[in-house]
Amino acid sequence: MDTVAIRHLYHDTDKYQGQIVTVAGWVRTVRDSKTFGFIELNDGTFFKSVQIVFEDQLENFKEIAKLGVGAAIIVTGNMILTPGQKQPFEIKATEIVVEGSCPSEYPLQKKRHSFEFLRQIAHLRPRTNTFSAVFRVRSLAAYAIHKFFQERNFVYAHTPLITASDCEGAGEMFRVTTLDPKNPPLDENGEVNYKEDFFGKMANLTVSGQLSAETFAMAFRDVYTFGPTFRAEKSNTPRHAAEFWMIEPEIAFADLKDDMRLAEDMVKFVINYVLENAPEEMAFFNQFVDKGILERLQGVASADFGVVDYTEAVEILKTCGKEFEYPVYWGCDLQTEHERFLTEEHFKKPVFVINYPKEIKAFYMKLNEDGKTVAAMDLLVPGIGELVGGSQREENLDVLLERMAELGLKEEDYWWYLDLRRFGGTRHAGFGLGFERLIMYLTGMTNIRDVIPFPRTTGQADF
Amino acid sequence: MDTVAIRHLYHDTDKYQGQIVTVAGWVRTVRDSKTFGFIELNDGTFFKSVQIVFEDQLENFKEIAKLGVGAAIIVTGNMILTPGQKQPFEIKATEIVVEGSCPSEYPLQKKRHSFEFLRQIAHLRPRTNTFSAVFRVRSLAAYAIHKFFQERNFVYAHTPLITASDCEGAGEMFRVTTLDPKNPPLDENGEVNYKEDFFGKMANLTVSGQLSAETFAMAFRDVYTFGPTFRAEKSNTPRHAAEFWMIEPEIAFADLKDDMRLAEDMVKFVINYVLENAPEEMAFFNQFVDKGILERLQGVASADFGVVDYTEAVEILKTCGKEFEYPVYWGCDLQTEHERFLTEEHFKKPVFVINYPKEIKAFYMKLNEDGKTVAAMDLLVPGIGELVGGSQREENLDVLLERMAELGLKEEDYWWYLDLRRFGGTRHAGFGLGFERLIMYLTGMTNIRDVIPFPRTTGQADF
Repeated sequence: MDTVAIRHLYHDTDKYQGQIVTVAGWVRTVRDSKTFGFIELNDGTFFKSVQIVFEDQLENFKEIAKLGVGAAIIVTGNMILTPGQKQPFEIKATEIVVEGSCPSEYPLQKKRHSFEFLRQIAHLRPRTNTFSAVFRVRSLAAYAIHKFFQERNFVYAHTPLITASDCEGAGEMFRVTTLDPKNPPLDENGEVNYKEDFFGKMANLTVSGQLSAETFAMAFRDVYTFGPTFRAEKSNTPRHAAEFWMIEPEIAFADLKDDMRLAEDMVKFVINYVLENAPEEMAFFNQFVDKGILERLQGVASADFGVVDYTEAVEILKTCGKEFEYPVYWGCDLQTEHERFLTEEHFKKPVFVINYPKEIKAFYMKLNEDGKTVAAMDLLVPGIGELVGGSQREENLDVLLERMAELGLKEEDYWWYLDLRRFGGTRHAGFGLGFERLIMYLTGMTNIRDVIPFPRTTGQADF
Repeated sequence: MDTVAIRHLYHDTDKYQGQIVTVAGWVRTVRDSKTFGFIELNDGTFFKSVQIVFEDQLENFKEIAKLGVGAAIIVTGNMILTPGQKQPFEIKATEIVVEGSCPSEYPLQKKRHSFEFLRQIAHLRPRTNTFSAVFRVRSLAAYAIHKFFQERNFVYAHTPLITASDCEGAGEMFRVTTLDPKNPPLDENGEVNYKEDFFGKMANLTVSGQLSAETFAMAFRDVYTFGPTFRAEKSNTPRHAAEFWMIEPEIAFADLKDDMRLAEDMVKFVINYVLENAPEEMAFFNQFVDKGILERLQGVASADFGVVDYTEAVEILKTCGKEFEYPVYWGCDLQTEHERFLTEEHFKKPVFVINYPKEIKAFYMKLNEDGKTVAAMDLLVPGIGELVGGSQREENLDVLLERMAELGLKEEDYWWYLDLRRFGGTRHAGFGLGFERLIMYLTGMTNIRDVIPFPRTTGQADF
């Protein structure tokens, strides 16, 4: 169909003014008097709607005047500038064709709806201002991530989702199976015989693409994954989902410093990209969802990120005079309250905390020379706390094996991962960024269920 | 680390010539005589390697001369042009630091390896020429897809992977569960009680994001998904994988013609992007994997795609005088042999076959006025047959309900999908492109296992 996107009317107003145009979209409101009326029409290509003016010369004037909110229509008319009015231009309709009507049961009538209510109609909520803005920002941020890495010549690796190895020894995984759910085949010991399952062994949904990404970094130097990951954690909180997307770059011939520089550049790039490409949406969030978010994001994009050693951070927290809910001591995992104090009140800018005690970090992180800490980094940002977590990886085979033995991880489960240290191993590093966390940070939305199109959480896999 | 990517040496040769540079990478070959030697060094940032010259003035000359294939090294030296030689320049090393050695057990010694063998070391195969080329092309093609849609203002929707509804009524799905595999809880009827499972009902891995994408198209007009999909089909063929990536755009206020135009533009865009951004890799495929692939792809990128009605295509096949393995009759599903005949021998260019019998197509495809065919399209391309499959969707609620009843699909399972026809429904269309199929098409690789980093197939989920 030859129609023009409302986005283009706004971006190329000069080109279209005075022209006959055809637009297609959905009715947000209709107001009418006896001889004329106004329709606010949104086509989803732009955050703002366009005003349609229609008069009783239209042969279907009465039908149009009674259109329900949500109806799909195609409008042809003259686009004229309306200086001094709220909207910069309007379309004087010469023809309006009803493409699809919308009865009054339509749940998105013109009024405020709670986010809880809108989750129950997740198939319709992208039609609201808030979710239109959220999901456009999500789309733009995803593209910004790809653009950032591709322009730096990183190779995008699709790491597998179904896996027969529990990468992080994390437990809490979903089983993937085609076995008879009621009467699974048993082996001679009376245990479930996974040899008869689809993959010939027990398979799960991955919790991270990192270990696979490392294999690619040892071939391409700079790589990234960006795909879904899963946690079967029964946490019913606003921050946990069972299915979410992760970005995990991995860089070879690189150390923790390179890793931090990459994370800083990436975060700034994504923020700037979204601010530039969704100014209307970001202004909406700033006005209605999280006042001050624009200033906060602009601050992060222009700040020099700080760096502080974990040991020093613990000292700062212990001596700052502030009461925390969770006690602070060397060896403790930092809680959100600690992280936010550091970035918001002490440093007043984004800050990397580095060199954490090895006990609270994963087996693959590089052991520092002190034998107590690992070359890990968490990026803390105002408003949220931890945004990115990463580390230099242990490239020394002996040290890695020792660490795995301490944690009871079996060598044979990691043979291919260990090969990376046997055959031309190098210093390398990487980090993980939870994509939903990033979107919450960019939009000010506070529930992970409201930044994923169709969220999957405990007890919830509708749509 | 401050090193320069070998890619930049090739792309900015003038800038670096005569300069002292530091490069880091992996040894492909070492040749040495008593007083000097050559190393072919590849760092994965570029398809080609760089030649390193080293002499016995290096204090670790003997160590370097004995370096194993695959070792990781960091080289500093003078980059000088070598006119008239095979390589355009080389680096005269003043220092070579061994970052990680590589023993002779390294399975990738300099010789030809079969693809079968390399699948068993999928963690190392990206270090070979073939797989370096395949996975760089895969990365570039993925980016090209995003670039194509984003530049047209499509919204990227992350549709869910875990789903409680079997979208296409296709069967063959993987169950996702956290129930006790051996003794699952049973309900009062003695059946597995999925109410106790993680999501409170039976959940599977999705076979398509289309139905979810349609909900977004009814808000944003133009959207696409690009994510993993799954089939639990026990087909052990070179074309089937249990986990693969799909691209599924969906466009509102659009019909089959718009859909075909979009598919044609997208295919051409991706081909051109890969040809422009991976000329070395594409030349390699043309020389060693699939002679003629460059010409074929260039042909597709510059062709006007044809269109033929299914009914006419069947006539062509019946009267062409060629013997086919599978019989041709009105109502039959076209096989690869038929598809390839049409595109390669009859039309001699890419061709859309449209308006298929409804019996061989999915329930959601728009019924044509003849009551017998649906507004479906398959794009056939030389060398492979079907590359894209799509359709206009049935937007008429009554017709859709009738079709679902014929096929025994339950209305209550699709309440939200049907809502899209109740509330401001519009003409809309979309298609699906199997990403691995596209990569096979772009590279000439003939086994799907060789275009996915870590393939998952029947009996196989290693790494």
